[in-house]
Amino acid sequence: MAEGKGDLKLLGLWATPFVMRVRMVLEQKGLKYENLEQDLSNKSELLLKHNPIYKKVPVLIHGGSAICESLVILQYIDENWSKTGPPLLPSTPYERAIARFWTAYIDDKLLASLKGILMAATEEAMTEKIADTYAALETLEGAFKKCSAGKGFFGGDSIGYLDIILGSLTVWIRVLENISGAKLLDETKVPLLVEWEKRFLTADYVKKVLPTVERLEEYGRARRANIG
Amino acid sequence: MAEGKGDLKLLGLWATPFVMRVRMVLEQKGLKYENLEQDLSNKSELLLKHNPIYKKVPVLIHGGSAICESLVILQYIDENWSKTGPPLLPSTPYERAIARFWTAYIDDKLLASLKGILMAATEEAMTEKIADTYAALETLEGAFKKCSAGKGFFGGDSIGYLDIILGSLTVWIRVLENISGAKLLDETKVPLLVEWEKRFLTADYVKKVLPTVERLEEYGRARRANIG
Repeated sequence: MAEGKGDLKLLGLWATPFVMRVRMVLEQKGLKYENLEQDLSNKSELLLKHNPIYKKVPVLIHGGSAICESLVILQYIDENWSKTGPPLLPSTPYERAIARFWTAYIDDKLLASLKGILMAATEEAMTEKIADTYAALETLEGAFKKCSAGKGFFGGDSIGYLDIILGSLTVWIRVLENISGAKLLDETKVPLLVEWEKRFLTADYVKKVLPTVERLEEYGRARRANIG
Repeated sequence: MAEGKGDLKLLGLWATPFVMRVRMVLEQKGLKYENLEQDLSNKSELLLKHNPIYKKVPVLIHGGSAICESLVILQYIDENWSKTGPPLLPSTPYERAIARFWTAYIDDKLLASLKGILMAATEEAMTEKIADTYAALETLEGAFKKCSAGKGFFGGDSIGYLDIILGSLTVWIRVLENISGAKLLDETKVPLLVEWEKRFLTADYVKKVLPTVERLEEYGRARRANIG
């Protein structure tokens, strides 16, 4: 069958936050797409063809043209369908800059500390990565206070770019609480983020895309079983 | 003296490619700014106040509000002064996605291999990092072919986002050729990039901002002297 000009295909993997964020935005915008789950231990020709540089998911294929890397894809969706559904990024250049800054912080600092918990091979490494995670979350609590300006989301009254980025990590954070035994999203430390998470998880498209803690925990524990 | 609403200050460091790229774009747009060179061994109150998270340069302070991280700053400048001077990012969402993808590649792969050459403590590490640099440059030669579509720059007929990003590394590449003894921008391997570099270096604002190879080499050799 010939590929249609506006066809949307997503090469994804359900457990990956980078894929979850793309799917949430596609759903939020109400865009129809074909979700093609990938097996990264046996990479498909489609994946190797469309992301020859990194050979990773997510890859969005739009009318045959590939877009790779989750943040690049999110901005592409927002710019290409700017009139469809709510805007993802804020409207002013300065607010967009702040959103991009915190996105980079989440993907740099928070993600590294969470991966550190998942793959910690010693008690010492685990303790260190839990401390790093607390520090990153407390910094993000401060960012939330400024960005939301008393409203419910980083994006103000509705879910925006930063909400999607941090939101793609919420289930993983809950899984890593179970694995580490530490309360990471702790209301005594980050009360605003704990309330934010509850609001975030009520959106229909979020519920549709995010996996359950149970399913993701099984996946996470299987990855831990391969350590060392 | 009170700070004016539109005042532009840049907290910078002449030898850092992340600062060079911001300065080139400010010059390209014809924006007036105060360039405040920072001493990172003795961080200023201004830097600690405006970039408390990373305490790094560049920081652009616009009417008292700070924007940190070079890629965030470049997009801010392009969006905030979209009618001033040539646009930095391409005009279509897909071309912008491609430019953002290759920017991430340069800041990830190419930069890591160049830093590896600068800080290589053994012959073996040096050989490995030179090979990584060749691989990254050859990949970027292919990217240039596609993005430029037979024109002179990644951005087409004129210098754009990707040209500025890669261009901020050209002097460092020449310095690392002298330090390593390897011809990195080699016309037998990456002929299009060699020709691109010549064109890039003729722009007045590029000449104004980029340091000489001699000055940067002295800085680079001083950093190498501290290895191990």
